[in-house]
Amino acid sequence: MSLKVDLNSDLGESFGAYTIGMDDEVIKLVSSANIACGFHASDPVVMRHTVEMAVAANIGIGAHPGFYDLMGFGRRNMNISPKEAYAYVTYQLGALSAFCKQQGAKIDHVKPHGALYNMAGKDYELAKGICSAIYDFDPDLILLGLSGSQMIKAGGDVGLRCANEFFADRAYEDDGSLRARTKEGAMVEDENEAVERVVKVLKTGYVTTYSGNELQLKIDSVCVHGDNAHALEFVKTIRERFAKENIEIAPLREVVR
Amino acid sequence: MSLKVDLNSDLGESFGAYTIGMDDEVIKLVSSANIACGFHASDPVVMRHTVEMAVAANIGIGAHPGFYDLMGFGRRNMNISPKEAYAYVTYQLGALSAFCKQQGAKIDHVKPHGALYNMAGKDYELAKGICSAIYDFDPDLILLGLSGSQMIKAGGDVGLRCANEFFADRAYEDDGSLRARTKEGAMVEDENEAVERVVKVLKTGYVTTYSGNELQLKIDSVCVHGDNAHALEFVKTIRERFAKENIEIAPLREVVR
Amino acid sequence: MSLKVDLNSDLGESFGAYTIGMDDEVIKLVSSANIACGFHASDPVVMRHTVEMAVAANIGIGAHPGFYDLMGFGRRNMNISPKEAYAYVTYQLGALSAFCKQQGAKIDHVKPHGALYNMAGKDYELAKGICSAIYDFDPDLILLGLSGSQMIKAGGDVGLRCANEFFADRAYEDDGSLRARTKEGAMVEDENEAVERVVKVLKTGYVTTYSGNELQLKIDSVCVHGDNAHALEFVKTIRERFAKENIEIAPLREVVR
Amino acid sequence: MSLKVDLNSDLGESFGAYTIGMDDEVIKLVSSANIACGFHASDPVVMRHTVEMAVAANIGIGAHPGFYDLMGFGRRNMNISPKEAYAYVTYQLGALSAFCKQQGAKIDHVKPHGALYNMAGKDYELAKGICSAIYDFDPDLILLGLSGSQMIKAGGDVGLRCANEFFADRAYEDDGSLRARTKEGAMVEDENEAVERVVKVLKTGYVTTYSGNELQLKIDSVCVHGDNAHALEFVKTIRERFAKENIEIAPLREVVR
Repeated sequence: MSLKVDLNSDLGESFGAYTIGMDDEVIKLVSSANIACGFHASDPVVMRHTVEMAVAANIGIGAHPGFYDLMGFGRRNMNISPKEAYAYVTYQLGALSAFCKQQGAKIDHVKPHGALYNMAGKDYELAKGICSAIYDFDPDLILLGLSGSQMIKAGGDVGLRCANEFFADRAYEDDGSLRARTKEGAMVEDENEAVERVVKVLKTGYVTTYSGNELQLKIDSVCVHGDNAHALEFVKTIRERFAKENIEIAPLREVVR
Repeated sequence: MSLKVDLNSDLGESFGAYTIGMDDEVIKLVSSANIACGFHASDPVVMRHTVEMAVAANIGIGAHPGFYDLMGFGRRNMNISPKEAYAYVTYQLGALSAFCKQQGAKIDHVKPHGALYNMAGKDYELAKGICSAIYDFDPDLILLGLSGSQMIKAGGDVGLRCANEFFADRAYEDDGSLRARTKEGAMVEDENEAVERVVKVLKTGYVTTYSGNELQLKIDSVCVHGDNAHALEFVKTIRERFAKENIEIAPLREVVR
Repeated sequence: MSLKVDLNSDLGESFGAYTIGMDDEVIKLVSSANIACGFHASDPVVMRHTVEMAVAANIGIGAHPGFYDLMGFGRRNMNISPKEAYAYVTYQLGALSAFCKQQGAKIDHVKPHGALYNMAGKDYELAKGICSAIYDFDPDLILLGLSGSQMIKAGGDVGLRCANEFFADRAYEDDGSLRARTKEGAMVEDENEAVERVVKVLKTGYVTTYSGNELQLKIDSVCVHGDNAHALEFVKTIRERFAKENIEIAPLREVVR
Repeated sequence: MSLKVDLNSDLGESFGAYTIGMDDEVIKLVSSANIACGFHASDPVVMRHTVEMAVAANIGIGAHPGFYDLMGFGRRNMNISPKEAYAYVTYQLGALSAFCKQQGAKIDHVKPHGALYNMAGKDYELAKGICSAIYDFDPDLILLGLSGSQMIKAGGDVGLRCANEFFADRAYEDDGSLRARTKEGAMVEDENEAVERVVKVLKTGYVTTYSGNELQLKIDSVCVHGDNAHALEFVKTIRERFAKENIEIAPLREVVR
């Protein structure tokens, strides 16, 4: 029996006259797309087109709700209340689901974007607001979050199935959190090492932390990027290695039961 | 057998710290609410609250999509393509439907707002973009538009059930269009006359145009306002008169078959 | 020789179809207006009109720059960089100054709004970004900030004249910070007490803190509100009391030398 | 004595995480930059950086105000009033001028963007709103508009110096208007022909219209683009040809007296 894991990537982040990301290329290489919903990126025309692409590629569709901060691309912390988070996530989920419904498709998962992902990973009340919105909208949706985070905890508490995300290029602390980008050694610069880490965590269930300890992690999905040609090469490298290791790439709904 | 007609009003147009409209009062007096969807007015927190109010009042829920022009309250013509109109309406419909779904409710109808309503009333291709979006999202939705307009025509062509709206306080031209606000006599200033016009068009199927001719109009819904105390009084007057005339007020789903 | 103090109020926070505040009334009662610049509130049409009103009333004109968060009225903390703060403040300052220039007027002071005011009151680097923008735009501008805050410190460091603001209706901690609204006793509910506090701090230079100690504070301006009839009454009460106490109300440029 | 003409290009249209245009390259090749002001494109951080670049390149700085329609990049007609146009242009002018003032620079000219440029070219009242705002802000500013348009007429009427813009790649109708893009032959596809047209209109004062007639045109500036490598090549070709023809490239303030 083979191992199964999802490869997810953020897609559909272009806006109006502005193009960002190599969606046409990366969509062929992943099993799930996190599709921007118009708050931190994207617009309705881009959303419709991105859903069409994801349906045609037959990959899992995820909503990628973010802060209402297009100027900051949803990467800046904003002090919103759990009640506001509930409403903002609902709004974005609904908007994306409408494009899916028109095309006979369905949202499989939700992955908060950027600063919302990071803040909710540490703030249980904020995470609860987000997860309640998801559950109340559709209890069958899968929450994709950082393994071991408050978001995963809140997702479980409200009754959502949760998928644990792994970052191949980021160092982990002993408590399972990502090493802050402001600290030395936050990024795994060597690509071979990054690939090895993914394979190891999938095969053994352990990752070596920044301090050198072995940390147990359950992994359902690996986050990859499609920003540039280099990022695409890395995804291809991962895929080749997975093939050799008999690791199957599959959308979240097949990975998370 | 009694006559049935819907009374509709725009609701949920507050935004952030800004309050507009007397929603608490007018919601008790109408049978359908056109709920703003965050483009020309409203925000996700307001939308959730407005859906809660409409559910509690047990009235018909309608989406009220508009131009992405909060600064102009959706009242300024914008030259968007039918493809953009399709995407913008889908986005707003989906967003509102998510709040309804969370509360076990459902959108009954769609009424475009302001300048979008007016432009689509005259531009068949634009209207087709809007109506296709509605139909592709949910073919059971009812389109609420100006009787005799291009929007009603496009709605019928794509397969939507259509509801014809009447404006008690506006003069009609012989071709069924509303007399332009820039022209003399565009508004029916006298309230008694306005009430009489509504009763007449419902009982006889005819309205007297600005030029004095009798125009046949099919009417399913009457638009009323809740902006101020005076507007609320007018709605109460209409309701009293309807009671005397044995005209039943009912949501669109009961009026349009 | 009489005491002189400025009375400042936030004005021009309406937006498009949305009206907020009783500007027509409060403008007659204050000596300085903090005019919103289109980020947290206001739009260009409102700004032009508000400048016209301030010019006609012959009061001091201040820029009131805030976060780019209309939905949150600039009241939610946002994690922007000092570099972003510099650019956002410059943009808003320039926009307001253009309406002044067209009318032969000039900005006298700058008071950051809401969450930006609060964050910069505690974060020296953020405050430095704001103050540098102001100084580089016009070194003659007066910075209006919370007495004893990091903003006042940064303002002094970059070379700006600084005006110290007092909040009549807020309790002070022993370190000069405002008692957090989430804590008991944060607000001075009794209006007579609020007026007494203002008079005392002006006459003696001391305010009684929440814990009961006497804190020395230098005061140049008192913040008042024009949100509702009640707030207006309070301003009138202050003015009457000032008259009795021979405290002169004057714009910041006459108070801060 | 040599002929003098300005080469202008739109710059600083990036926004947040979104990059558009090859500003670093095109800025070396033109004599004037039309800098976006945050409505149709750009943000305050981008504006500050773009002004820095223009100052370093020692080229003329122009404000490039547009519609408040980032999603449509200011390319969609919006039905704003002359009063709104006045306020929107003032706001954008002021914002850009603040970044210039901080750097010891000054705006030389104003060129409305996209749909605002096109609409004001045909609508005298709208153009008057724009031009009055410019004049009231600074009567020394130069208006850059389509030669023979209502905008140039309004600019002259309010007392502005006006610069006439020529589009090398667009066909002209007999009345001096640009041939609509929806019509056949609207674009001059052949680059050599485009260059010839520019040289001819500068040397003779005449352009051959779409219908084959000779139309007299006064030209002060030629619009070029920096969107892609191909566009940059075209600018280089024009510059080389100008050198051969002894046509001097100079900023507007040296061309328009």
